[in-house]
Amino acid sequence: MSINKAELLSRTVKHIDITQFDFVNLIESMEHTAFQARNLARGAKIYNQMLEDKNCSIILCLAGSLVSAGLKKVIVDMIDNNMVDAIVSTGANIVDQDFFEALGFKHYQGSPHLDDTALQAASIDRIYDTLIDEDELRICDDTIADIANSLPAKAYSSREFIQEMGRYLEQNGKDPQSIVLRAYQKNIPVFVPAFSDCSAGFGLVMHQTTRQDNHLTIDSVKDFRELTQLKIKARETGLLMMGGGVPKNFAQDIVVAAELLGAEAPLHKYAVQVTVADERDGALSGSTLREACSWGKVSVVYEQMIFAEATIAMPMIVGYAYGKRAWTNRKSREYNKIFAEQHKAATEA
Amino acid sequence: MSINKAELLSRTVKHIDITQFDFVNLIESMEHTAFQARNLARGAKIYNQMLEDKNCSIILCLAGSLVSAGLKKVIVDMIDNNMVDAIVSTGANIVDQDFFEALGFKHYQGSPHLDDTALQAASIDRIYDTLIDEDELRICDDTIADIANSLPAKAYSSREFIQEMGRYLEQNGKDPQSIVLRAYQKNIPVFVPAFSDCSAGFGLVMHQTTRQDNHLTIDSVKDFRELTQLKIKARETGLLMMGGGVPKNFAQDIVVAAELLGAEAPLHKYAVQVTVADERDGALSGSTLREACSWGKVSVVYEQMIFAEATIAMPMIVGYAYGKRAWTNRKSREYNKIFAEQHKAATEA
Amino acid sequence: MSINKAELLSRTVKHIDITQFDFVNLIESMEHTAFQARNLARGAKIYNQMLEDKNCSIILCLAGSLVSAGLKKVIVDMIDNNMVDAIVSTGANIVDQDFFEALGFKHYQGSPHLDDTALQAASIDRIYDTLIDEDELRICDDTIADIANSLPAKAYSSREFIQEMGRYLEQNGKDPQSIVLRAYQKNIPVFVPAFSDCSAGFGLVMHQTTRQDNHLTIDSVKDFRELTQLKIKARETGLLMMGGGVPKNFAQDIVVAAELLGAEAPLHKYAVQVTVADERDGALSGSTLREACSWGKVSVVYEQMIFAEATIAMPMIVGYAYGKRAWTNRKSREYNKIFAEQHKAATEA
Amino acid sequence: MSINKAELLSRTVKHIDITQFDFVNLIESMEHTAFQARNLARGAKIYNQMLEDKNCSIILCLAGSLVSAGLKKVIVDMIDNNMVDAIVSTGANIVDQDFFEALGFKHYQGSPHLDDTALQAASIDRIYDTLIDEDELRICDDTIADIANSLPAKAYSSREFIQEMGRYLEQNGKDPQSIVLRAYQKNIPVFVPAFSDCSAGFGLVMHQTTRQDNHLTIDSVKDFRELTQLKIKARETGLLMMGGGVPKNFAQDIVVAAELLGAEAPLHKYAVQVTVADERDGALSGSTLREACSWGKVSVVYEQMIFAEATIAMPMIVGYAYGKRAWTNRKSREYNKIFAEQHKAATEA
Repeated sequence: MSINKAELLSRTVKHIDITQFDFVNLIESMEHTAFQARNLARGAKIYNQMLEDKNCSIILCLAGSLVSAGLKKVIVDMIDNNMVDAIVSTGANIVDQDFFEALGFKHYQGSPHLDDTALQAASIDRIYDTLIDEDELRICDDTIADIANSLPAKAYSSREFIQEMGRYLEQNGKDPQSIVLRAYQKNIPVFVPAFSDCSAGFGLVMHQTTRQDNHLTIDSVKDFRELTQLKIKARETGLLMMGGGVPKNFAQDIVVAAELLGAEAPLHKYAVQVTVADERDGALSGSTLREACSWGKVSVVYEQMIFAEATIAMPMIVGYAYGKRAWTNRKSREYNKIFAEQHKAATEA
Repeated sequence: MSINKAELLSRTVKHIDITQFDFVNLIESMEHTAFQARNLARGAKIYNQMLEDKNCSIILCLAGSLVSAGLKKVIVDMIDNNMVDAIVSTGANIVDQDFFEALGFKHYQGSPHLDDTALQAASIDRIYDTLIDEDELRICDDTIADIANSLPAKAYSSREFIQEMGRYLEQNGKDPQSIVLRAYQKNIPVFVPAFSDCSAGFGLVMHQTTRQDNHLTIDSVKDFRELTQLKIKARETGLLMMGGGVPKNFAQDIVVAAELLGAEAPLHKYAVQVTVADERDGALSGSTLREACSWGKVSVVYEQMIFAEATIAMPMIVGYAYGKRAWTNRKSREYNKIFAEQHKAATEA
Repeated sequence: MSINKAELLSRTVKHIDITQFDFVNLIESMEHTAFQARNLARGAKIYNQMLEDKNCSIILCLAGSLVSAGLKKVIVDMIDNNMVDAIVSTGANIVDQDFFEALGFKHYQGSPHLDDTALQAASIDRIYDTLIDEDELRICDDTIADIANSLPAKAYSSREFIQEMGRYLEQNGKDPQSIVLRAYQKNIPVFVPAFSDCSAGFGLVMHQTTRQDNHLTIDSVKDFRELTQLKIKARETGLLMMGGGVPKNFAQDIVVAAELLGAEAPLHKYAVQVTVADERDGALSGSTLREACSWGKVSVVYEQMIFAEATIAMPMIVGYAYGKRAWTNRKSREYNKIFAEQHKAATEA
Repeated sequence: MSINKAELLSRTVKHIDITQFDFVNLIESMEHTAFQARNLARGAKIYNQMLEDKNCSIILCLAGSLVSAGLKKVIVDMIDNNMVDAIVSTGANIVDQDFFEALGFKHYQGSPHLDDTALQAASIDRIYDTLIDEDELRICDDTIADIANSLPAKAYSSREFIQEMGRYLEQNGKDPQSIVLRAYQKNIPVFVPAFSDCSAGFGLVMHQTTRQDNHLTIDSVKDFRELTQLKIKARETGLLMMGGGVPKNFAQDIVVAAELLGAEAPLHKYAVQVTVADERDGALSGSTLREACSWGKVSVVYEQMIFAEATIAMPMIVGYAYGKRAWTNRKSREYNKIFAEQHKAATEA
């Protein structure tokens, strides 16, 4: 099968704009029904409770490929409207997809039934029903290498490096609708605990290989330390999780880490997870939030598993909370500053 | 609900011993049936092909909680019989579960229906139907901190640190049936790309916090660099994957990384994945191996998705290959040595 | 655990009213995204195409427990607005849930975490997170027996018996918002191919047992014959399927049955299925609509699988089509009349 | 894509023979592990308990496409060795697949990736990765019509009609390894509650259409009545269920039906279900056996859900019980005789 690359890469994914729809009455109707519609409604209401709770800091966890699937603007709207205080994500969402689009590239609509061998020959990468121009992805890798080459050779948390990516976009970005850029400008920390596991990995491997003796490193322990620090500072927290994987585990773990450091850190007070996984294989992604309670991580009072796919569920949950406008009374917590201050303190000492 | 901790923690998980069963005829019968039995049989045969292929290095990917679920000996048998050349895993399997058991602790049989609030009060952690004594897990965290405290303060790959954990166990371990120990002794590299996302993270956060100015770091880029080096050295490779997540992505990515470094690295020639996930949410864990072909990572000739849960499927796949005895002609590749040699070269230069 | 029945049965399930929401722009936005949101949007648009296609008769298939879950009004709105021409369902939806509510009973909100042994002791039946008063369900069984006792002892299709249930409700019903009642009044046939597999079965077993020599029977072949006749009459057809099971299979099969009877019956021209099942176990519920094409049942041009749960997806699909208003130009096909005419013809002959 | 039919239909599905393997030690090892391996082991042991329990009658429920997938001999071995006392199934297993093979036809190995439009053109039907010659299936339909044409025109339960199919095979069958034939010879009742929903439906629609005024009918109420009678006669019962759907519901319901008829019928004492479905959509197929307890159908003492696909799990469960040999002490219950006796009594009266 021969493939016309230009034709295949012609219909761009357009990001859904939750500010254009009214989800409030719909969600409130769904609350009176059953099954996942009710779970979805309850989850949306718990997220809104987090926004209403003056003392609650909100951590958004993102697994899977949400940005390429058209959910970028949902997340940008959360950032812009003080609906989130920290983000923990897979690298795919933050680097391959958001940073990639901020460089001016796009994702395209395809189909799960395309011939993958033919796609490979045409340098087109497929994610279920979306397509990426592999040549553009290589430019993204190179840009990461360039940023790394421009920085002092020391150990960075992924959060610190992603801040540098935001700084880069402020100068060189081509699309202001960017999670990395807006989080940078609003001082919202973005963590990618498995930072090499994406386009960033490719760029940084090139950086380290070309600079054997003078390269930066990404210290995953520092990530964990910083997020734990944030928990200690924030005290009360809520988790809004799209998918499972490392982001879910990482964000849940900080309660225990804070405790080990001698801090008084309450369980995550609120927790909502959207997932298509289930608990049958004992893996974390589908494990219930009740199970997380046995580990001393999550309270069972305000927890909700929603068995749904995020492209449908996330706009409805965030759209509901957007429509309820509790966020209008929230202040930006600008948690990136706590790390800067600490850094400053350390430097001055 | 009040809980009797001693009673709850009384039935230990016992690891299944595939060397005691004959899976060869069963798998060959299943090949003539349909659905997942046939997929399982085809996957087992592809794994055996990897063992028969003199040029093929085998990378085992482990996600989820396999070791606590009784699959530890399957993996140890693979190591002992030259049935695997590198391991990429979640931290849970390697640190919280294998290293933990090597320290003399156990996992216990429970039930998914226990009251998690009561478990939390009793310091018992639950994974679906298995239980862990949280106090023992804290000792595991502390041991990691102790090991870190004993090492020079530099940037380590997770592989390097896990080697140190193996060295520690050789001195102090209480159970010789250990993946970390046996991999160390056989020079088989073990990578945990999200190394902070487990008990190791807790130990290392304590290490870094108590040694603000003189601590080691875990460089996730170095992990990626090392595994890519291994790919370049190995050339032909096969993936046997239990679950998806970061290990799957990480191991698939090295083909692209090798290419970016200018090396001629063929696609993974063989790929088998056991998972209960499906492709509907566009996430990597359930994405088909055909999709990975579009990314230039996996060949479609010898690939097989098996939709099954690993506690059932893994013993059958590995047991089949064990029974076929192609491994008796395989040599240990001892890939840890390529990193040591490189290190030595660098030191001498 | 002791249970307060009155307290448990206090929060009624309220049926969602799609006429109150605007789904048009939302669905059209989702069409530009990916994964299941795009599948949902494409499915909604195909359903709307069915409504726009003057020659297309629409068969709605209902599996699972949709009515007790709050979707009754969605289906009633479809009937009232000429958005459906025939219904094929499980007995649960039609008898235990719709007819049951038409008798004046309700479904209640519960939780999946209740103690089922305690529920049993209190005569409360649970469906995931909804509850039913078992004593009221027994009244529903008895009413079916009463209706059967009042009818001539002959072989009925489920459709014929359900018409009699509609006639009964017109006299004795307590809630006009009923699928059985409204379908009766609009002459829309409702088939339940496994009619004994629900409350109707209990009622009819009592009827037959008390009237050993003078009872009616439910001839499942007649059902299949009638639905095939409808296909022959309708020629062009589209399927909108919630869940899989017998309704999906039954409705797909009529294309082949019509052919076997020597009629020229085209493939189902349109087909949309909402399901959480997948194809891995080879069962029909999750089998793709492409697979149905190999059987000569469904065309592949306008087919869409949507991997989502019906309580979320159905209101969005039907709500979109409601908002597009193509139904305003549709006439009621009143297919019940073709069976009446045939009956009349037979009687007169 | 053009297709070579003879080549595609060349590799036959061969039925797995559990009597050739030793599953006892494997299952007993799996009992000490976790997740689905432990669930599988517990389920196998509960099935063996049913066989050991002198008072327990065993009902086997079969949904999905198990016979075409290579599980026919497992079921025939259960019949031959008094390991089952009644069968409730979808029509696909019993008519399209078992009866079909008994007529001398075969199922073939294919792939889920074939082009379904091309298959349709070649009159090949696909079930996931298996293929059927549609022309042969039409012969199966015709044979059903022939059998119907040869019988007195009255109301039959599916069980009665399937007995006639067994009688037909005894004369005309080409493969003695048949569920329908062996169940007939051993007087084991086989129920297909949605009997029109398969090849039988096609044959019977032709029968009724060609004999408008003189045809038999299939009374689904009679099925329910007979199975309830069996429950009343048997008193203590256990369910072994492959998949969910109508067979699961139907077999569970007889406890309630018996009660309604004034009989003292205990809950199903044992219940094991193998399924890949889960409870998230509130549908019966994935509903937990605990939920069935709330309905007064199943006891929670010996119940086990096994989340696995039947082609892998069923041979292991039945193979384990076969190996334990409790069946050697069981007598054949020959429940078909209770219906014959009743019939005789009715005739004599």
